[in-house]
Amino acid sequence: MSSHVVDMLTIGNSFSTPEMRGIWSEESRLRRQLDVEAALAAAEGALGVIPQDAADAIADAAGGDFDLAAIAAEGAKAMHSLNATVGALQAAAGEHGEWVHYGVTTQDVVDTGTILQIKDALAPLRRDLVALAAALRDLTERHRATPMAGRTHYVQALPTTFGFKTAVWLDETLRHLERLDAVAGRVLTGNINGAIGTYASFQGRGREIERGTLDRLGLATPRIGWQAARDRIGEYASTLALVSTTLGKIATELSTLMHSEIGEIEEPFTAGKIGSTTMPHKRNPALLEGAAALTAPIKHAAALVLDGAATVHERDAISWRAEWIALPEIHLYLSAQLATLGRILSGLVVHEDAMARNLALQGGLILSEKAMFEIGRELGKQTAHHIVYDASMAAVESGRHLADVLLEDPRVSSRFDAGTLRSWLDASAYLGETGAAIDAVLAAADEAGIPAADGPASPGPAA
Amino acid sequence: MSSHVVDMLTIGNSFSTPEMRGIWSEESRLRRQLDVEAALAAAEGALGVIPQDAADAIADAAGGDFDLAAIAAEGAKAMHSLNATVGALQAAAGEHGEWVHYGVTTQDVVDTGTILQIKDALAPLRRDLVALAAALRDLTERHRATPMAGRTHYVQALPTTFGFKTAVWLDETLRHLERLDAVAGRVLTGNINGAIGTYASFQGRGREIERGTLDRLGLATPRIGWQAARDRIGEYASTLALVSTTLGKIATELSTLMHSEIGEIEEPFTAGKIGSTTMPHKRNPALLEGAAALTAPIKHAAALVLDGAATVHERDAISWRAEWIALPEIHLYLSAQLATLGRILSGLVVHEDAMARNLALQGGLILSEKAMFEIGRELGKQTAHHIVYDASMAAVESGRHLADVLLEDPRVSSRFDAGTLRSWLDASAYLGETGAAIDAVLAAADEAGIPAADGPASPGPAA
Amino acid sequence: MSSHVVDMLTIGNSFSTPEMRGIWSEESRLRRQLDVEAALAAAEGALGVIPQDAADAIADAAGGDFDLAAIAAEGAKAMHSLNATVGALQAAAGEHGEWVHYGVTTQDVVDTGTILQIKDALAPLRRDLVALAAALRDLTERHRATPMAGRTHYVQALPTTFGFKTAVWLDETLRHLERLDAVAGRVLTGNINGAIGTYASFQGRGREIERGTLDRLGLATPRIGWQAARDRIGEYASTLALVSTTLGKIATELSTLMHSEIGEIEEPFTAGKIGSTTMPHKRNPALLEGAAALTAPIKHAAALVLDGAATVHERDAISWRAEWIALPEIHLYLSAQLATLGRILSGLVVHEDAMARNLALQGGLILSEKAMFEIGRELGKQTAHHIVYDASMAAVESGRHLADVLLEDPRVSSRFDAGTLRSWLDASAYLGETGAAIDAVLAAADEAGIPAADGPASPGPAA
Amino acid sequence: MSSHVVDMLTIGNSFSTPEMRGIWSEESRLRRQLDVEAALAAAEGALGVIPQDAADAIADAAGGDFDLAAIAAEGAKAMHSLNATVGALQAAAGEHGEWVHYGVTTQDVVDTGTILQIKDALAPLRRDLVALAAALRDLTERHRATPMAGRTHYVQALPTTFGFKTAVWLDETLRHLERLDAVAGRVLTGNINGAIGTYASFQGRGREIERGTLDRLGLATPRIGWQAARDRIGEYASTLALVSTTLGKIATELSTLMHSEIGEIEEPFTAGKIGSTTMPHKRNPALLEGAAALTAPIKHAAALVLDGAATVHERDAISWRAEWIALPEIHLYLSAQLATLGRILSGLVVHEDAMARNLALQGGLILSEKAMFEIGRELGKQTAHHIVYDASMAAVESGRHLADVLLEDPRVSSRFDAGTLRSWLDASAYLGETGAAIDAVLAAADEAGIPAADGPASPGPAA
Repeated sequence: MSSHVVDMLTIGNSFSTPEMRGIWSEESRLRRQLDVEAALAAAEGALGVIPQDAADAIADAAGGDFDLAAIAAEGAKAMHSLNATVGALQAAAGEHGEWVHYGVTTQDVVDTGTILQIKDALAPLRRDLVALAAALRDLTERHRATPMAGRTHYVQALPTTFGFKTAVWLDETLRHLERLDAVAGRVLTGNINGAIGTYASFQGRGREIERGTLDRLGLATPRIGWQAARDRIGEYASTLALVSTTLGKIATELSTLMHSEIGEIEEPFTAGKIGSTTMPHKRNPALLEGAAALTAPIKHAAALVLDGAATVHERDAISWRAEWIALPEIHLYLSAQLATLGRILSGLVVHEDAMARNLALQGGLILSEKAMFEIGRELGKQTAHHIVYDASMAAVESGRHLADVLLEDPRVSSRFDAGTLRSWLDASAYLGETGAAIDAVLAAADEAGIPAADGPASPGPAA
Repeated sequence: MSSHVVDMLTIGNSFSTPEMRGIWSEESRLRRQLDVEAALAAAEGALGVIPQDAADAIADAAGGDFDLAAIAAEGAKAMHSLNATVGALQAAAGEHGEWVHYGVTTQDVVDTGTILQIKDALAPLRRDLVALAAALRDLTERHRATPMAGRTHYVQALPTTFGFKTAVWLDETLRHLERLDAVAGRVLTGNINGAIGTYASFQGRGREIERGTLDRLGLATPRIGWQAARDRIGEYASTLALVSTTLGKIATELSTLMHSEIGEIEEPFTAGKIGSTTMPHKRNPALLEGAAALTAPIKHAAALVLDGAATVHERDAISWRAEWIALPEIHLYLSAQLATLGRILSGLVVHEDAMARNLALQGGLILSEKAMFEIGRELGKQTAHHIVYDASMAAVESGRHLADVLLEDPRVSSRFDAGTLRSWLDASAYLGETGAAIDAVLAAADEAGIPAADGPASPGPAA
Repeated sequence: MSSHVVDMLTIGNSFSTPEMRGIWSEESRLRRQLDVEAALAAAEGALGVIPQDAADAIADAAGGDFDLAAIAAEGAKAMHSLNATVGALQAAAGEHGEWVHYGVTTQDVVDTGTILQIKDALAPLRRDLVALAAALRDLTERHRATPMAGRTHYVQALPTTFGFKTAVWLDETLRHLERLDAVAGRVLTGNINGAIGTYASFQGRGREIERGTLDRLGLATPRIGWQAARDRIGEYASTLALVSTTLGKIATELSTLMHSEIGEIEEPFTAGKIGSTTMPHKRNPALLEGAAALTAPIKHAAALVLDGAATVHERDAISWRAEWIALPEIHLYLSAQLATLGRILSGLVVHEDAMARNLALQGGLILSEKAMFEIGRELGKQTAHHIVYDASMAAVESGRHLADVLLEDPRVSSRFDAGTLRSWLDASAYLGETGAAIDAVLAAADEAGIPAADGPASPGPAA
Repeated sequence: MSSHVVDMLTIGNSFSTPEMRGIWSEESRLRRQLDVEAALAAAEGALGVIPQDAADAIADAAGGDFDLAAIAAEGAKAMHSLNATVGALQAAAGEHGEWVHYGVTTQDVVDTGTILQIKDALAPLRRDLVALAAALRDLTERHRATPMAGRTHYVQALPTTFGFKTAVWLDETLRHLERLDAVAGRVLTGNINGAIGTYASFQGRGREIERGTLDRLGLATPRIGWQAARDRIGEYASTLALVSTTLGKIATELSTLMHSEIGEIEEPFTAGKIGSTTMPHKRNPALLEGAAALTAPIKHAAALVLDGAATVHERDAISWRAEWIALPEIHLYLSAQLATLGRILSGLVVHEDAMARNLALQGGLILSEKAMFEIGRELGKQTAHHIVYDASMAAVESGRHLADVLLEDPRVSSRFDAGTLRSWLDASAYLGETGAAIDAVLAAADEAGIPAADGPASPGPAA
C-alpha cells in the first residue's frame, strides 16, 4: 500500500522513473548507510583504531541482507531513525559488533549516505540531460531554416525559425550542464566527524578517519564539518530546480503550440494512447503536460530544502527533516521530467505546413517592422513608425493586407510599388542573423560533447 | 527617489493604484498609529485612568501635523521604530504629554494601526471585486448563448459558450466575496494589552481600556492578546492570495485567447496605446499581462505572511517584519490587479466570428463525443467509442471531415445517412445544460447583490 | 519498495499516521473512484437514463475486488490514468458494462473521488484537532497561575503564566476549528458534469444525474462545474496550512523551552527512547522536533495546490497534477503533526521550579516596567522611564539587583524604601489580568464543545 | 509619499542601505537604460550603421538631465514602459533623434539596463561579504579555544569552542564568495538582438552591433539572445538567496544565544538604543532580529524570479514583471542584511564567563560520550553505552553529578576512581580536533584573500 503518488503502481511512472525510485528506495537508503559503516570500519581498521579483523567482519556483514521490517519494528521502540540499523549490523558482525559505528554520530552516517545516493542519482540525471541536449541539437540542425511566427505577448511578432527557438533551449541546457558539473564538485562531500563535528570521540585520529572513510566512498573531505552548514545541499537543490524550470518552460511552450488553432508541433503519438474517455478525437499533449507539471513541485521541494538550511545550534531535526522529504522528491520528479521530455523531443512531430500557414495569417502584419525600416530609409524612422502604425491598425480593423493599406498612403505609393511592398512582407526573407546565432550555439554544443541524436526514440512513460 | 516598483513614477501604476498607495503610505501608517494613541487616551480618560484634560489634549495633538523626516531622524538615533512617534506626540501634547502611550507597548500601537489600514483597504477591495463580478455578470448575460470551442489539455474538446466560461469565473468570484466578508469579521480585531498581553501595566483596568479603545476605532476586541497568534492575519493574506489566483487565471486565460491564431477576445484598445517600439502592428494583451503578472508576487507575499506567523515566545521581530513587508504588498498589487482586470472585463471585445470560425476548424471532430453517443445508441457505447476513435484518428491524419470518414464505415453508413451525421456535428445544437448552470450562477449573483454592469468603462492604467 | 518518506517502513510514521495513509492509499483512491461510478450508475438507473439492472450490476461490481497491478499494466498501455479502471469495472459488470461511466469524463470521477477522500480525512483531522484543544484546555486550567518569564525578542520581558501562554494557543485552535467547519461546507462539493462541464453527453438529464449522484455520496452539488475553478480546494489547502502553522509554532516554542539552560518543559519521555547513538545523556525534544518539522512541507504543498489553480482553458493536466501530489501530502503530514503534538501536550512535563528559577534570574529587572509605573505615579512617566532605564542598564552591566541600584538615586530613595521596592519586583504579584483573559478563552472552549482532557496519554510515534 | 517599506523614511534603513537604494532607484534605472542607448548609438556609429554625428549627439544627450515626472506622464498615455524614455532621448538629441533606439526592442534596453544595475550592485555585495568573512575570521582566531557548550536538538551535547562555531560559518561564507564569482561570470551578459532575438532589424550587422554595444558597457555577449532564457538571472537570484540563508541562520543563532538564560553573546550596544517603550531594562537583539528577518523575503523574491523564468513564446510580460519586482528587492534586502550582520559580528560581545557557566550546568552530563568511550575501553562500547545511559537518565532525574552516579555502579567503581571520572568530565580537555579543522578553514580564508578584521566597527542601522 502506497500513499504518495511516486510510489503508486498506477500513476507512479508519471512522477518518477523506476531507475530513480531504485536509487531513492528505502532499501537503497539502508544500503548506502551500511556502505558508510563499512567504509568507516575499513578506514578505522587500516589506521589501527579498531582491530583489522573487526573491520573485515563489519565490511562483510554490511554487504549482507537485512530485514527492513525488523529494523523498522526495532526503530519504533527506540523512537530513533538509525539506532536499529546499527543494531542489526552489530548483530550481523557477531563478536566484532562492538566496533560498529565507532566514534560517529547518526547524522554522519545518514548525511554521508544521502550524499552517496546523490552521487548515484547524478549519473542518470546528467546522462538524460545530455540526451535531451542531443535531441535539441538535432531539432536545431534539422529546423535551422524552418520559418515560423515568433510571438511576443502571445501575439505574432516577427518571423523566426523553429531551429532558432530550439537553439535558445539548447544554449540554456548547455549552461545547466556546466552548472551541474560545478555543483557536483561541491555537493559530493561526505561528513564523518562525530556528534557536533569536533571529532572528540576519535581519540585524535578523527581527521584521518574521516579522510580514509570518504576516500573509500569516492567523496570529497570537508575542511570542517557541515552538519550545521547545508549550503552545498541548498545549492544543489537550487540548481536542479533551475534545470527543471527550463524543462517546464519547454514543455509548456510545446503544449501551447499544440493548441488546435496553432497546431505547429505534436508530441509523439502511439497507437493505443487515449486522450479522453469520452472524446475519441482528442490527441492531447499528454506527455508534455505530464512533463510540464513537474516543475512546480520541484521548485517547492527546492525551496523546502533551503528552509531546511536554517539549522539551530550545531544540529537539529526540524530543519533536517526538510531534506529527508525534499531531496528524494526533487530527484524523482526530475527523472520523470527529463525522461519524458527527452523522448518527446526525440520524436517530436513538426508541422512545417502549419508554421507556414500561421506565418501568412495576418496578411503581412508580421513584417510591419520590415516595412517600417524600409519606409524609414526614405522618410525617417519616426515618420515611418507613424505611417506603418496607422496602416497596421487599419489593417487589423478591416482584415485587409498590410501592403494594400500602405499603398493608399501617398507618401508610400509615391515612393514604392506593390511588388516592392509585397517583397518586404516575405517572411522567409526576414530571418535576420538567426543562422549565425544558431551556429554559435551548435559550436558550443560540440565543445560540450553533445552527441548527435539517434533519431526518434520510442515515446515515453504512462501519462 | 524610490527604489521599489510600487513607488516609481513611471511604472508604479502597473503595480498599485494611487488610492491603495495612499492607504499604505508612510503618512497613513503614522496617521493610523496616532489614531490608536488618540483612541487609547480617550478610553483611558473616560475610565479615569488618565486625566480627561490629558485625553482631550492628546486627541487634539494626534490630529495635528507631524514631520515625518524629523521623526525618522529621531528614530534612527534610538534604533526603534515607534519611540520617536510617541515622542513627537508627547511634545505636541505639551504638559499632558506624560499621559501619551499610557500602559501600552509598541506592538499594541503598530499592530492595531495596521488593522486600521486593513480596514481602510478592505472597502475599495470589496468595491472593486463587486465591480468585477458585475462585469462578469454582464458578459455572462450577453454571451449566454455565444458558442465557442471548449478546450481541455490545450486542444478543442466540445462546444461551450463564452457566457458559460465567464459564469464559472463569476461563480468563483461570488465565493470570494463570501470569504472576504467572513475573514473581515475575524481580522478586524485590534490588540491593546501591553508588553506581553497581560495588561500588567494598566492597573487592573486593562480589559476595559482595550475594549474602550477598540470600540472607538470600530474594531473587535480579542478574547486574549494576539501578539503571538497571527492566524487572523495569515488567514486574511491567504484569502487575498486566493482571490488573486482567480484574477490571474482569468487574465492569463484571456491572454491565451488573444493569440493571433485564436483571436477570440481582445482587451479594450485605446488610440495611442503602443504595443511595441519596433513592431507597429502589435496589439498586445498589455493590460491582461499586467494583471496576470500580479498573482505570483501576491502568492509569495502571502506565503511570507504565513512564515511570519512563526512567532518566538511572546513576541519577536524576525517574524513580525515579514508582515511589514508583505501585508502592504498584497494590498497594493491586488488593487492594481482588480482595477485593471475590472476595466478589461467591462470593455472586453468578444469576437464571436472568430469563435465560430474556430469551432468549425476541425471538421466535426469537436463533436466526436456526440457522434459516439448517437452511434452508441445503436451499437453500444464501447463499440461506438472504437468506431469514432478510429475515424477521428483517420480524420486528423487526413484532414477530412469526420462525417465523411465515418460514412466509410459500413456499420455507420448502414444505419445513418450523411444528413443525420452532419446534424450531429452542429456545435450550436450541442450545448448541453449550459443555460441552466448559467442561470443558477446568475441567481446567486442576484442574491449576493451584484449590480448590473454600467457597460464598457474607460480602459485602465499604464501597462 | 517505497521511495517517498511517507511510505517507508522505518520512518514513515514520523511523516504520517497509518490511519491517514489508509485514507490516501492507492487502494482507497481506486475504491473512492469506484464509489463514484457506482453512485453515478445508481442515479442514472433511478432516473431511467440507464437500465436499472445495469445500475444494480455496476454497483455490485464496483464493490468487488480489483487487481491494482493489472489495472496499472493496462493503464500504462493507454497512457491514461483512469481508462483501465473503467475497463476493469466494465469487465466486472459483464453484459452491463456498456453502461459504466455513462456520460461522465475522467475528471468527474477523479475529482469527485478526491473529494470523498477529503471527506474521509476531515473526520480524523477534526477529531485530533479537538483532542489537541482539549489538551491545551487542560494545560491552561492547570497552569492558569503558574508564573513564568514572558519573553519578547528572545529576552525576558515581564512575568506571565504558563496557562496564559497555552490559552493563546487554545484561542487560536478554536478559530481553526471554526475555519475548518466553514471550509468543509464549501470543499465537500462533487462535480459530475461531463467533459467540459456542459452536461452535453447526458441528454438533458445532466443536472438531475449530478445531484442524484452527489446526494448518494453525501456531497454538495455545485451551481456550475468547477473543473476550471479550484478555489474551494485552494481555500481548503490554505486552511490546513494555517492550522499547521500554529502547530509548528507551538512545537518550535516548546522545543526552545527545552533548551538545557531554560528547561521549563519537557516532552513525555518513555523508557527505551534514545536521544543519540553517541551521547547517552541526551533527552532531546525528539517528538517536538518531529512535529515542528512538518509545517514547512505542508506550507509548500499548500502553495503547490494554489499553483495548481491556474487552470488553462476548461481543463488541463499541468495544473491538475499539482493537486495529485500536494493534497495527499498535506493530509498525511498534518495527521502526524496533530497526533504527535496532541500526545506531547497530553503528557507534557511542566517544570514549575525551573520557571520560578528563571523568573528570578535577572535580579528584578523583569519588573522594571512595574518600578517605572510606581515611580511614575510620583515623578511622571517620562522621568520614571529615564530613572529606571539608567538603573536597568547599570544593573545589567554590574549584575546587581535593580532595587539596589534604584535606591542609589535620591529621587527614588527620598520617596520609597527598600521594602517597597522589593515588593514591586515580586513577579507573582504582577500578572495583570491574565486570569480574566484565560477565563474568556476557556468560556469559548466550553461553547465550542472542547471536552476536558483525559490526562496524560501515552506518548507518540517513532521520532 | 512612499508605500513600500524599503522607501520609507522612518524604517527604510532596516530593509536596505542608502547605497543599494541608489543603485536600484528609479533615477538609476533610467540612467542605465540611457547608458544602453548611448552605447548602442556609439557601436552603430562606429560600424557606420548610423551616422557618427548622430551617435555622438545621442551619447551627449543621454548624459544629460531628464525629467522623470514628464516621462512618467508621457508613458501613461502610451501605456508603455520605455517609449516615453526613448521619446525624451530623441527630443534631447534634436535632429539626430531619428537614430535613437535604432533596431532594438524595448526588452533589449530594459534587460541590458538591469544587468548594468546588477553589475553596480555586485561590487558592494561582494565587498560586504568579504567584510563579513573578515569579521568571522577575526572571531574564529580570537575564540579558537574559547570553550562553550555545543548543542544538538536544542540540548547541550558536547563541548565545542566559539571559534569552531564561527569557523563553520566562515567556511560557508568562503563557498558563497566562490559561487558569487562564478555566477557573476554568467549573469553579467547583455542582450541586444531585437524584437525576438533574430537581429532582423539590424540589416545584417546585428551581431557586430550587439558585441560593440556590450563591449562598451563591460558586459559579455551571449551566443544567442536570452529574452526567453532567464536561467542566468534565476541562477543569480538563487545564489543570493543561498547567501542570505546563511546570514539569516547566523543572525537567528546569535539571537537564540542572547536568551536571558543563555546569555553567551550580545550584539553591540550603543547608548541611546531603546529596547522597549515600556520595559526600560530590555537589551534586545534588535540588530540581529533585523538581520534575521530579511532571509524569508529574499527567499520568496528569489522564488518569484524563478517563477518569472516561465517565459511564453519568444517573450511575454507576465513572467518578465516578476523580475521587475523581485530583483531589486533581493539586492535591497541583502544589502541591509550584510551591512547589519557585518557590523554585529565586528562588534560582537562574547561572554566567555556565561559560556563556561553553561558548560558546567549539567553536572558532567555533557561529557557522557567521553565517559562512555573511556568505560568502553574496558567493558566494550555497547556495555558502556548501557551503563552511561542508565547513569545519565538517573542523573537527569535526580540532579546529581554524573560522576557520582557512575561511581555507584560496581562495574565502574571497580575499575576507575573518582579523580579519573572527574578528569574525563573536564570540558576544556574534550575539544577533539577543533583546532585542526579551524586551521584548515583559516588557511582557506587566507587563500581567498580575506583580510584581517579592523576590530569593532560602529554598530548598524536603525533596527
